Amino acid sequence: MEYVLRTMHEIANFILKVSKILKEEQVEAMINLLVEVYNKKNTKILVMGAGRSGLVGRAFAMRLMHLGYNVYVLGDTIVPSIGKDDIVIAISGSGRTKLIVTAAEAAKKVGAKVIAITSYPDSPLGKLADIVVEIPGRTKIADTELDYFARQILGIHEPLAPLGTLFEDTALAFLDGVTVELMHRLGKTEDELRARHANIEL
Amino acid sequence: MEYVLRTMHEIANFILKVSKILKEEQVEAMINLLVEVYNKKNTKILVMGAGRSGLVGRAFAMRLMHLGYNVYVLGDTIVPSIGKDDIVIAISGSGRTKLIVTAAEAAKKVGAKVIAITSYPDSPLGKLADIVVEIPGRTKIADTELDYFARQILGIHEPLAPLGTLFEDTALAFLDGVTVELMHRLGKTEDELRARHANIEL
Amino acid sequence: MEYVLRTMHEIANFILKVSKILKEEQVEAMINLLVEVYNKKNTKILVMGAGRSGLVGRAFAMRLMHLGYNVYVLGDTIVPSIGKDDIVIAISGSGRTKLIVTAAEAAKKVGAKVIAITSYPDSPLGKLADIVVEIPGRTKIADTELDYFARQILGIHEPLAPLGTLFEDTALAFLDGVTVELMHRLGKTEDELRARHANIEL
Amino acid sequence: MEYVLRTMHEIANFILKVSKILKEEQVEAMINLLVEVYNKKNTKILVMGAGRSGLVGRAFAMRLMHLGYNVYVLGDTIVPSIGKDDIVIAISGSGRTKLIVTAAEAAKKVGAKVIAITSYPDSPLGKLADIVVEIPGRTKIADTELDYFARQILGIHEPLAPLGTLFEDTALAFLDGVTVELMHRLGKTEDELRARHANIEL
Repeated sequence: MEYVLRTMHEIANFILKVSKILKEEQVEAMINLLVEVYNKKNTKILVMGAGRSGLVGRAFAMRLMHLGYNVYVLGDTIVPSIGKDDIVIAISGSGRTKLIVTAAEAAKKVGAKVIAITSYPDSPLGKLADIVVEIPGRTKIADTELDYFARQILGIHEPLAPLGTLFEDTALAFLDGVTVELMHRLGKTEDELRARHANIEL
Repeated sequence: MEYVLRTMHEIANFILKVSKILKEEQVEAMINLLVEVYNKKNTKILVMGAGRSGLVGRAFAMRLMHLGYNVYVLGDTIVPSIGKDDIVIAISGSGRTKLIVTAAEAAKKVGAKVIAITSYPDSPLGKLADIVVEIPGRTKIADTELDYFARQILGIHEPLAPLGTLFEDTALAFLDGVTVELMHRLGKTEDELRARHANIEL
Repeated sequence: MEYVLRTMHEIANFILKVSKILKEEQVEAMINLLVEVYNKKNTKILVMGAGRSGLVGRAFAMRLMHLGYNVYVLGDTIVPSIGKDDIVIAISGSGRTKLIVTAAEAAKKVGAKVIAITSYPDSPLGKLADIVVEIPGRTKIADTELDYFARQILGIHEPLAPLGTLFEDTALAFLDGVTVELMHRLGKTEDELRARHANIEL
Repeated sequence: MEYVLRTMHEIANFILKVSKILKEEQVEAMINLLVEVYNKKNTKILVMGAGRSGLVGRAFAMRLMHLGYNVYVLGDTIVPSIGKDDIVIAISGSGRTKLIVTAAEAAKKVGAKVIAITSYPDSPLGKLADIVVEIPGRTKIADTELDYFARQILGIHEPLAPLGTLFEDTALAFLDGVTVELMHRLGKTEDELRARHANIEL
């Protein structure tokens, strides 16, 4: 199981390294916006991402629901119309996933605020977003465009984890961190989260 | 963003610690079975989990598809009937999630092999599984039953990450490790995985 | 395309026949409950069904959202906890689908009201429901238990449509009828529904 | 329940009327292609649609799986890459749903054959498709473009069923008819379909 262990180490070390280079002003902007809208009962949050990034978004959306937010996931059956008071959280390592860029553009057009979780602030998604949080990672785009962070800053040259794995797993850990930060800022306990957990579950 | 960083550290350190106490015979049993069935084109793999554990299962199922497996996810539209040549991978921290236990029982009844990813080998899911891989974590069940591993062995007393977070994130890192191990055992490159990645994506 | 046309005729005629034997007190009980809770902004409606019946439920759930209800679908990412002020709408031709019966039992236990759409008022689902609406159909259960309605009353002996098709398509037409009835009772126009339609859609 | 019954009549009568104006060469082209690929075990079928049209697509995809096809649904977790031997079935009343047009264009680019189920053969989706099957219906696009069929030919002036209901329900009945036609052409019995029905179901 050598490669199982080496990969777990790579993922864990990547999460630790990313925690050291997170940009505080980006993270605070995201958290402040989420704290600000908490009591606005009309504010809807729509979370979106494709493939495994979409699954990371869904995992975060569940926690936002447990915290008491009015949250939806693109791809669920129930997705309401959104407007100028609403927030879109879009997750895409490359910032170029066509569907997500298209959906984020549509969200901007109706006046919603867009938070992008991406490795590339200069990507189409990064450029249109109101708030960008940079999470490094190897992504699916061509090698030449690949990961200044991963290669230069983090010193990762031959990663084990294929495709978007490092971005996805680190984005999940980051967003789980945002959940805990929100618990503290909003004064919510684990029991309050548990009480909102689905009691009829598939 | 203090709690964001502390939580990311907690998750990363938990993954590192778990990598040290993984039981080799359990992990090897899982990997050997997956290697063994790779060329049996009739073997179907059905992945299942509830809530965030289900999302972790979906992330792993995508990688199994990228590797070339004939894989399905309980909850998708397309779920075929399964039988004695097939494999079920069930993910549940507590090993008690009613739906998952019921579905795993149904799988056993038709003769499928069940791999359980759980914190509790003595749980209903753990007991019925052919192969158990223990992944510690705090889980949703009552405190009194909680986490011998997390409390005693890992020395975690007041975890930040709420509910099943540590189990879920660690299970994801572990299963991403299984993906890399399978790439090496089956001789698959990242390019081969990329070629099987959905080219029409939501 | 002979069988295409014959099947379309069979389905359409089945819908017409069922409209003649719908039990008014059942349908009125369902609609009255939905009208009664419309302005209770805390009331949640959870729609559930397995397989194609689940898809019919999702189609109805979308319309309930368009009407302004606070509605969720079992199997979506976002499913809140429910309680005594909430309503479950469970769709199962046989009334015996294990998952749906289990979930409906859980809903009863927390005090939610259960509306069952089923061919069998005496089935486990029918018996536990607060309100049953009988929609005939051929279902997946053993032939000997099959469809008193379909065979005797409707005179259908050798249906073309396989498995649960007649139940599912008729349940969809019935629930689309409930949507129109609710539009009239609640004074909602098509434009109001359109305004709530997802403007960022997958 | 007056409007329930009137709506069920409207839907059933619409299905009957549409069955009289279906274009045989369109329907035969679709069925012949599906019969032709049945024994090509490498051919994948990808079904797609947004909103309630997507649910109709999923209901048909389940039946294609029951018939033995290698079928996938856009939006499911498991969606493989597709290529020139594969078939896309795209469902959109207006033929203008942005996501579906984009996805169908991507499918054409890789050489897949596209079957469009739409009310508008001259829509973007209709124009790019290899095979179009026209199913009339009121759709979500602006009134001025609305439904030559529904208004002129079918004599429907003030339909009860809101938004895309008539298209969606009629498309479902049509596709259920295609299932029965395929059963006859491929010599499949209901028991064979039942054997492929998920035995572990959510």
